[in-house]
Amino acid sequence: MFFHKQELQFTATPAKPDAILARRMQELLGGQYGEITIAMQYGFQAWNAHIPGKYRDLLYGIGSEEFGHVEMLAIMIAQLLEKAPVEQSEEAAKSDPVLGAIIGGMDVQHAIVAGAGARPVDSNGNPWQGSYITASGNLLADFTANANGEMQGRLQAARIYNMTDDKGVRELLSFLIARDTMHQNQWTAAAAELRAEGVEDLPVPSNFPLGQEQREVSYQYLNFSDGAAAKDGSWASGPTPDGKGEFSYHDGPTTSSPMPPPTQPDPRLFGTDPKPNLIDKASGVIKDKLSDK
Amino acid sequence: MFFHKQELQFTATPAKPDAILARRMQELLGGQYGEITIAMQYGFQAWNAHIPGKYRDLLYGIGSEEFGHVEMLAIMIAQLLEKAPVEQSEEAAKSDPVLGAIIGGMDVQHAIVAGAGARPVDSNGNPWQGSYITASGNLLADFTANANGEMQGRLQAARIYNMTDDKGVRELLSFLIARDTMHQNQWTAAAAELRAEGVEDLPVPSNFPLGQEQREVSYQYLNFSDGAAAKDGSWASGPTPDGKGEFSYHDGPTTSSPMPPPTQPDPRLFGTDPKPNLIDKASGVIKDKLSDK
Amino acid sequence: MFFHKQELQFTATPAKPDAILARRMQELLGGQYGEITIAMQYGFQAWNAHIPGKYRDLLYGIGSEEFGHVEMLAIMIAQLLEKAPVEQSEEAAKSDPVLGAIIGGMDVQHAIVAGAGARPVDSNGNPWQGSYITASGNLLADFTANANGEMQGRLQAARIYNMTDDKGVRELLSFLIARDTMHQNQWTAAAAELRAEGVEDLPVPSNFPLGQEQREVSYQYLNFSDGAAAKDGSWASGPTPDGKGEFSYHDGPTTSSPMPPPTQPDPRLFGTDPKPNLIDKASGVIKDKLSDK
Amino acid sequence: MFFHKQELQFTATPAKPDAILARRMQELLGGQYGEITIAMQYGFQAWNAHIPGKYRDLLYGIGSEEFGHVEMLAIMIAQLLEKAPVEQSEEAAKSDPVLGAIIGGMDVQHAIVAGAGARPVDSNGNPWQGSYITASGNLLADFTANANGEMQGRLQAARIYNMTDDKGVRELLSFLIARDTMHQNQWTAAAAELRAEGVEDLPVPSNFPLGQEQREVSYQYLNFSDGAAAKDGSWASGPTPDGKGEFSYHDGPTTSSPMPPPTQPDPRLFGTDPKPNLIDKASGVIKDKLSDK
Amino acid sequence: MFFHKQELQFTATPAKPDAILARRMQELLGGQYGEITIAMQYGFQAWNAHIPGKYRDLLYGIGSEEFGHVEMLAIMIAQLLEKAPVEQSEEAAKSDPVLGAIIGGMDVQHAIVAGAGARPVDSNGNPWQGSYITASGNLLADFTANANGEMQGRLQAARIYNMTDDKGVRELLSFLIARDTMHQNQWTAAAAELRAEGVEDLPVPSNFPLGQEQREVSYQYLNFSDGAAAKDGSWASGPTPDGKGEFSYHDGPTTSSPMPPPTQPDPRLFGTDPKPNLIDKASGVIKDKLSDK
Amino acid sequence: MFFHKQELQFTATPAKPDAILARRMQELLGGQYGEITIAMQYGFQAWNAHIPGKYRDLLYGIGSEEFGHVEMLAIMIAQLLEKAPVEQSEEAAKSDPVLGAIIGGMDVQHAIVAGAGARPVDSNGNPWQGSYITASGNLLADFTANANGEMQGRLQAARIYNMTDDKGVRELLSFLIARDTMHQNQWTAAAAELRAEGVEDLPVPSNFPLGQEQREVSYQYLNFSDGAAAKDGSWASGPTPDGKGEFSYHDGPTTSSPMPPPTQPDPRLFGTDPKPNLIDKASGVIKDKLSDK
Repeated sequence: MFFHKQELQFTATPAKPDAILARRMQELLGGQYGEITIAMQYGFQAWNAHIPGKYRDLLYGIGSEEFGHVEMLAIMIAQLLEKAPVEQSEEAAKSDPVLGAIIGGMDVQHAIVAGAGARPVDSNGNPWQGSYITASGNLLADFTANANGEMQGRLQAARIYNMTDDKGVRELLSFLIARDTMHQNQWTAAAAELRAEGVEDLPVPSNFPLGQEQREVSYQYLNFSDGAAAKDGSWASGPTPDGKGEFSYHDGPTTSSPMPPPTQPDPRLFGTDPKPNLIDKASGVIKDKLSDK
Repeated sequence: MFFHKQELQFTATPAKPDAILARRMQELLGGQYGEITIAMQYGFQAWNAHIPGKYRDLLYGIGSEEFGHVEMLAIMIAQLLEKAPVEQSEEAAKSDPVLGAIIGGMDVQHAIVAGAGARPVDSNGNPWQGSYITASGNLLADFTANANGEMQGRLQAARIYNMTDDKGVRELLSFLIARDTMHQNQWTAAAAELRAEGVEDLPVPSNFPLGQEQREVSYQYLNFSDGAAAKDGSWASGPTPDGKGEFSYHDGPTTSSPMPPPTQPDPRLFGTDPKPNLIDKASGVIKDKLSDK
Repeated sequence: MFFHKQELQFTATPAKPDAILARRMQELLGGQYGEITIAMQYGFQAWNAHIPGKYRDLLYGIGSEEFGHVEMLAIMIAQLLEKAPVEQSEEAAKSDPVLGAIIGGMDVQHAIVAGAGARPVDSNGNPWQGSYITASGNLLADFTANANGEMQGRLQAARIYNMTDDKGVRELLSFLIARDTMHQNQWTAAAAELRAEGVEDLPVPSNFPLGQEQREVSYQYLNFSDGAAAKDGSWASGPTPDGKGEFSYHDGPTTSSPMPPPTQPDPRLFGTDPKPNLIDKASGVIKDKLSDK
Repeated sequence: MFFHKQELQFTATPAKPDAILARRMQELLGGQYGEITIAMQYGFQAWNAHIPGKYRDLLYGIGSEEFGHVEMLAIMIAQLLEKAPVEQSEEAAKSDPVLGAIIGGMDVQHAIVAGAGARPVDSNGNPWQGSYITASGNLLADFTANANGEMQGRLQAARIYNMTDDKGVRELLSFLIARDTMHQNQWTAAAAELRAEGVEDLPVPSNFPLGQEQREVSYQYLNFSDGAAAKDGSWASGPTPDGKGEFSYHDGPTTSSPMPPPTQPDPRLFGTDPKPNLIDKASGVIKDKLSDK
Repeated sequence: MFFHKQELQFTATPAKPDAILARRMQELLGGQYGEITIAMQYGFQAWNAHIPGKYRDLLYGIGSEEFGHVEMLAIMIAQLLEKAPVEQSEEAAKSDPVLGAIIGGMDVQHAIVAGAGARPVDSNGNPWQGSYITASGNLLADFTANANGEMQGRLQAARIYNMTDDKGVRELLSFLIARDTMHQNQWTAAAAELRAEGVEDLPVPSNFPLGQEQREVSYQYLNFSDGAAAKDGSWASGPTPDGKGEFSYHDGPTTSSPMPPPTQPDPRLFGTDPKPNLIDKASGVIKDKLSDK
Repeated sequence: MFFHKQELQFTATPAKPDAILARRMQELLGGQYGEITIAMQYGFQAWNAHIPGKYRDLLYGIGSEEFGHVEMLAIMIAQLLEKAPVEQSEEAAKSDPVLGAIIGGMDVQHAIVAGAGARPVDSNGNPWQGSYITASGNLLADFTANANGEMQGRLQAARIYNMTDDKGVRELLSFLIARDTMHQNQWTAAAAELRAEGVEDLPVPSNFPLGQEQREVSYQYLNFSDGAAAKDGSWASGPTPDGKGEFSYHDGPTTSSPMPPPTQPDPRLFGTDPKPNLIDKASGVIKDKLSDK
């Protein structure tokens, strides 16, 4: 169950309205790595968790904070839109270059659809979608996804921090960036703990029997491009991070197989095949079957 | 530039057609973490890279292999569909339960749209989309995304491995799983190398000035749920993975702020506001402005 | 801010796993009118509200309950999937018709992608998307959208109620259907209260000056089809619900206008126009401009 | 069957081209509540209707008019685009701020994709999609959806009315707004008629047996937020609009249930579970089954 | 303007309900090449046309027929769903293999969302979307798109024809297939007429000055694969269909260019670059700029 | 298999950065008819081909070149973004109209999401999607789709050519336009060759038995609009392009059928029907069945 309190975790009031900035802030709210993604991702991972206790508690504990971040951003965006211009034809743009810039730089649906309110979309107006989240049931894979999510999120917030001088917006971003610092650290720690406790390990999933994979190519770097520096990294020689092999380097594939022959599906699917008259055009019967008669 | 060779990296021929399995294999081809995602993700990261040399070579080297995996899966799926049934009404289902199961379990667009061919969609028929990929320009964030991608991919291939006894399909999956093992290891090694060389570090982005974030909450675990085990992990006390702080644990927020007042946008957006008669209904002029006259 | 409690509002445990039912329940979780839609819709309406007090409190009060419903459904679905089959080739279907039916009727991504967990998708596997919600800033329009949402939601839950005999699922549905009954009533009451208090009225938006609309067609029923019964309803004669007019009935349009001439955009957009040689093919200059020289 | 006449229902010629306004008008054509939505929604409700006669005639009668509105808007947009600029690099923007504003404010696909023509997209360029419409087979639910659709549509048209001074565009909007006034009234009247005739009633669906819902919570307002004004409305005490109960007010839930234990799906899905070594890594066999041998 | 008549162009009544077939028929209604696509494509091409007269009349004349085909298919689908089963748990599937097959093979949203009605989606339940249509303003390109649309449509209808023995459905398909035959012929004739009249020609757009393209590669077949038969076709030697060149064949590229150096965007975007310490971490100032002080 | 070479097929370096142009170029990369579409379309057609030899070689040969075009465009776009502005609030726009124009005209996700890199989206930021491609298994239909794809692609490149004076961008576009000229010619030649060789013919699919279609309407032009010029074209009289019929012209339909009665699905779907009390509200049992007891 979720309970709501009509307070915010941190000040979320801009120094002044700025419709262009409101549009940029939508990325942090409804983008691929926005707060809706983060909140829903941790929620679904918790609801689908197979182990009670600390790992699931961690998902619930952070996930619920993130729903509050969704709220903070939505409220901040609504305030940034408070003076969004209504007069917006070419005529207006012609008379005032500043207004022209705002018209071009704002999200027009903020005015037309939401009446100067926040929306569940990214900075290009693409609606948020469920396919942004990852919840596989495998915690090491998912915590890695979470670490990635917090990295991309902090990166985007840091970029937008530089896109404004507004003191109020920068304060909120400072706070969110700090929380992203925390959560990057937490998922990194939690992933390490899963491995230390032997709950899960590299390669993920660690309990798929290694004997069932084609082990001879499990540690070969097959370079399908012609970059000369490709073999200089720690990924081309030396021990592998999963502790189970040794990297080797190869120009191109070490295996190959002839292309199988083209397929011959049922002629009644009317694909183009080498025997184009396979169906009797008068009766619609496959000729192979005709001869059976 | 890409050059194509009419050979495959590995055998991709099923023991026998199986339309239900063809649908499942679509997840590995066109799903959120399918080979199209992986190939395009590495491609865009390479094309957008800011450093020449080993990191970019790695992206090109693996990315080009992955385009070949897209091809292997597409060809395998076409073969699995070679005997996909054409007769598919309820009537057919009634007469033969096996046929009924196939009808229910196959992707009907395989027959109707592709004439028994592979499609750029996932196992539920959702078209692949560009928003599946991540290419941020920050290599530590992106290599973490890549490690996650290879983990989810290996996990899904391992699951499908158990969903079939087909020797040919299992062989291809064994091969792809082994390559995922390799690539998980490579991105993990590459992420470590970025940190070891001081090119990038935690928290990502590491060159955002720490003084610009709200440092007092950068290492606080604020637990917004009521799980008793939440503080038992290495994420609630002790040093943080970024080496720059010490975790602390808190029940709920350590900061709070009153909700800002509701916004009052231009009344000509016709939002519901506390002064509903703000527009003069006869003239359409805002009353505040009327009194100015 | 949102706080989470590791309890549910109501029992959400099925009598036994049922992967086919799990797929159907996804409609109530991640469909166009599922709980994610409802929770997010009320959230965004609250965050964008322009009036403090009872109307916004109502949005927060119900919205927060709905996030808990998202959780209940996700947890129920995970339990329904607990025995989802892993062996799923045509071969399996052939050997066991029941298994064949389950394979056809379940959502394959439940197993492959989520490892037997709930997903933010509808019963056909379409990801939830932000364009499902409505938050316009106009409360009478939005409360009407909310009443519609609760009606569609209760309708779908009632349909699924009949699709199962599982006692646990039916109990949860009984509870959710009862809450939908409540919320239908609340939004209907709240819409009436907005009108009674003069905050908003029909036609929405009520403060758009009526003098600016083409009043002569504001109450004409223009029937563009040939149904004989079209004029029998209360929508074809008598006073209008907004209290500002009288319905009248007409076969087809009462106004018409000739089609404007086709447009002639810049020839450098290479549209097909009546003067196809408008661009000089050697120089690429528009011929009109050539003659200017 | 539909028959087309090369005339428009109303004048749809702008005073002058305005590419920025053309983009805004797309919301009324291809947006969530644009004319394509409205026309298709009434069409599908009519085609799926279960009762012949006045209700279905109403759907056909209005729906067919709306297809003509789609045409009027498309033609108007094409005219607004007639002088859309072709030269559009940064260089051009630098030399002429007005051109810069137009470049920013217009939809670039209008020029690149449609050659200065209308498109089936909204004002942010999102393609129209089938999930915008509602056609449930339950007329009271659907007529409520229709009333909402006409409210949102009139609201958006009224907003855009204020965004331009173009006489021709304003005339068309005046006409469309008047038709929205009519249709809001009609669906409101039709919903009332359904209830008056006993065909359908609140709560929708009215023929779901009330005894099958959890009646004790059917009229309780459970406030999951902390707003003090939440109980002041007519939705917290007094008789309910469905005439079948009495509202009561409660702070938070009146029921609760412990969280069910986490799920334990088949280990061959490789989710992270409390018994990580459940699969024998050499053989791939589930250990439980090993002991069976 | 569109006028509706409550008659159909052809009989659209199935011999008996068949929920599995109803799902397949959705492809013809709401798929990528379904009737909604075709009707909307011709509509938008007509509304955006730049020439009055026979070409635009053709678009209107066929487009309006297609809206009636949308209706016929929707009504047929609703009838096919008339006996769609409501009881649909695993339990039901277990007791009756036929029911199990129907459950797997039908579109569950037909029951849950539409109450046994047609929907604007394809046979996998993907909503129809505006990006399926093509309307570029260039008639030769668009008529080619139309010919392709009618070919794909006839192909899919022919495939579904073989998937059923239902006499009523087959009759409707016979009719639709015949109309597709007609429209394939019409667009082919119209494309030829555009060329014969000199209105447009190959290569499209024909009025782009040839001197502005890199003519030396305009007729070279550059084979980037290793297929031995690649040069055997009429596309590798001899005169070109546009009458302006002669095909030549080449193994691989005839031109090449070194890869440009990686980009160096503003360091405040925090991409990973060769000079990772470019920003002063204490002040957030770019170091290049520091030295300017 | 695909092999990558770190060279480009042609120079792809702009004279100078231009963020507005970068956004426009996205259409050619990730739009409906961008290079990703073209490359993937030819790829899937090759992988699904049923005939070995020259036709499949052609698909592989061109398709592989197109993957290199994806790369050229991505690299060009990254360079165009090299100086994309970071400071982007309204404040900045106010101080500098040029900057304002750039802010409005650029794709903000280029900076926020990709750190000044290319993205797999179109010029409005819509993600590329799998439903853009066509691969039906029928080569005449698909080659027609390919010809259309190359026409639309050349058209869009020609439009963008006029939108810039940048010498580097124009050179790349000249090259791509020339390759589109080639590929338009190749698919046209290949379609003709399919017909000449009798592999496939009009109407597509040519091996669907003509006797199974409603031949009496196969060559009738049924004009559902009122355009006077509709019968003037070669599509209304004379021999048909498939060589199997003679066009005839008709005002409106030559056939008609009464609308079938509305459907009566299971009342437990709670659709609105003429017998609203069909379910016993106390027991939930269908009354018809009650009387059976």
